Amino acid sequence: MARVSIDVMLKDEILDPQGQAIERALPELGFAGVADVRVGKHIELELPDGDDLEERVEAMASDLLANPVIESYTYQVHR
Amino acid sequence: MARVSIDVMLKDEILDPQGQAIERALPELGFAGVADVRVGKHIELELPDGDDLEERVEAMASDLLANPVIESYTYQVHR
Repeated sequence: MARVSIDVMLKDEILDPQGQAIERALPELGFAGVADVRVGKHIELELPDGDDLEERVEAMASDLLANPVIESYTYQVHR
Repeated sequence: MARVSIDVMLKDEILDPQGQAIERALPELGFAGVADVRVGKHIELELPDGDDLEERVEAMASDLLANPVIESYTYQVHR
């Protein structure tokens, strides 16, 4: 089994209201100067290892985990 | 400015319905053998660099970004 982590983020050109809310809240909590906050999903999973692992992860991410119209994803394989 | 990414995940002992839903959906989409799916938040932000950067990130994560009762976090600093 390989352990894979996938990050799904809204594309840069898509407004991120959750990130904006955090950006507004942080100065009130005493954290100054925080900028460019983006919030996405972090998914961890295990799947059978194999030569086609990257292919399967990419298919999985674009078919189910991310909405390719508004989101992009990156992933890391921990073998 | 330093770029920081923070992953907030439900603790292992907390049920993760979103992860379970993905785990159930994947075999129907042709991805067999996927196990232990966990879904959390991935937050990226920029903040002023400094000696106390780690300290500030940890305070930020435990005060605002994660609920320490049910969630744990990890972070990476990209300087």
